[in-house]
Amino acid sequence: MEIILAKEYGFCFGVRRAISLAEDALRSGKRVASLGPIIHNPLEVSRLASMGLRVIEDINDLNPEESLLIRSHGVPLDVISELKRRGVDIVDATCPLVARAQRMVDFLSSEGYTVIIAGEQGHPEVRGLVSYGGGKTFVVSSPEEVPDLSGEKIGIVGQTTFSIDRFREIVGEIVSKSWEVRIFNTLCNASRKRQIAVEELVEKTDVIIVIGGKNSANTRRLVEIAESKGATVYHIESWNELLQDWFIGKENIGITAGASTPDWVIEKVLDKIRELCYQ
Amino acid sequence: MEIILAKEYGFCFGVRRAISLAEDALRSGKRVASLGPIIHNPLEVSRLASMGLRVIEDINDLNPEESLLIRSHGVPLDVISELKRRGVDIVDATCPLVARAQRMVDFLSSEGYTVIIAGEQGHPEVRGLVSYGGGKTFVVSSPEEVPDLSGEKIGIVGQTTFSIDRFREIVGEIVSKSWEVRIFNTLCNASRKRQIAVEELVEKTDVIIVIGGKNSANTRRLVEIAESKGATVYHIESWNELLQDWFIGKENIGITAGASTPDWVIEKVLDKIRELCYQ
Repeated sequence: MEIILAKEYGFCFGVRRAISLAEDALRSGKRVASLGPIIHNPLEVSRLASMGLRVIEDINDLNPEESLLIRSHGVPLDVISELKRRGVDIVDATCPLVARAQRMVDFLSSEGYTVIIAGEQGHPEVRGLVSYGGGKTFVVSSPEEVPDLSGEKIGIVGQTTFSIDRFREIVGEIVSKSWEVRIFNTLCNASRKRQIAVEELVEKTDVIIVIGGKNSANTRRLVEIAESKGATVYHIESWNELLQDWFIGKENIGITAGASTPDWVIEKVLDKIRELCYQ
Repeated sequence: MEIILAKEYGFCFGVRRAISLAEDALRSGKRVASLGPIIHNPLEVSRLASMGLRVIEDINDLNPEESLLIRSHGVPLDVISELKRRGVDIVDATCPLVARAQRMVDFLSSEGYTVIIAGEQGHPEVRGLVSYGGGKTFVVSSPEEVPDLSGEKIGIVGQTTFSIDRFREIVGEIVSKSWEVRIFNTLCNASRKRQIAVEELVEKTDVIIVIGGKNSANTRRLVEIAESKGATVYHIESWNELLQDWFIGKENIGITAGASTPDWVIEKVLDKIRELCYQ
């Protein structure tokens, strides 16, 4: 029996940076609350909570003297304005790639483009992106949702974790209907690399364990891709969910993890698999 | 037996305009030579020849006192410069949509974009478009031909008669590899409308006659589309090619024609079919 790790897995640069900024702020003695959970991983959220990081869902829940941590997804413009108006200390952990996508929406909008954001309606990152479009944006998650905007200049950006194939399809649909289209491919390479890596992993293994929050979009995407390639896939958040049955008769066990899965969780999963297979 | 015409067929605006400009020039008493055949239709070329329009393949073959007609495809920039240098009278019948595509290549190139032209390498229109790109253009006819240009801003235009599906595929390929892509969809609606119309025609008919030059790209495209929909298709240039056999036992006969097929040829084809079917 062999355990094979995907070529790319786990924390992306933006998440690693956000956690590090949170830890630094907490260690410096600040009292910090994050607006929403810092990442889609309950175990890491618990670990940071034990260090003192509070999670709030509304800026009105912020305690006096508390700093507000903006997580890697970013926030809508009006949240920033309101925090500034209130004089709140901000720990801005917006992923630099998300911040760049926000700037691109702002730029396209200021240049007179109607902006289409390829992404999931309602996703926190997407809500942030929309706020930079001056009220003239559309969020679409499939070619069928592309509105009829013939006669307008169209700008396109994508949610950083969006599927590149769906992005291409949406772009194709828009391009066939519009005279001028300007695209910034804001999709994150990290997600893409993890997606390619899981495809390669399917070829080499009998069973795949995907580690990550059940509500993490990029983790679920890894599960979908592996399943679409015909693999037997188990999606777990914690080592406690592993069952010995999954590994009986398996030669090669593939492991990957979503961008919000901490290294220490992955280590615990590996230990547990070894224990189950060798006992 | 019924003859059904496609909803859109025959001369497009650009070709109608080019022929009309040639006729006007000839009627005004000018001696005119066109650089290459004015359209991909030997019958119309013969008709115009009988009015005095000469066809030359090189501007060095131009006779003194002769005006030069630029056909709807347009010509490369250096040809225009050389004609101007020689003081040649130019009858410019470049299709306004092709001229617009040329301006877009010029614009994208001046804005620092590497320009990709989706089209057929070597096609006269494409040779013209390339000349506006300041030496930094690539012609691609399929996604496989897209060069690796990561790190560059990419501008895309298309040959006006290019397939919209192929255009979408090429755009998708480029978009997935590049940060910034700016697209002008210079594809001609006329071609597209004729293509949609032939698809509809297949549904309603037992046999399809496509009329147009055997070397006309847009005519051949109509044949391809009808064949791909499972139709029995005959591609003819002249009414003389029609055979009675094709119509035996057929209820509905569909007719379409390429963008370079003159109305008078279509009329003669219709007359001949009626003659064959009712005799």
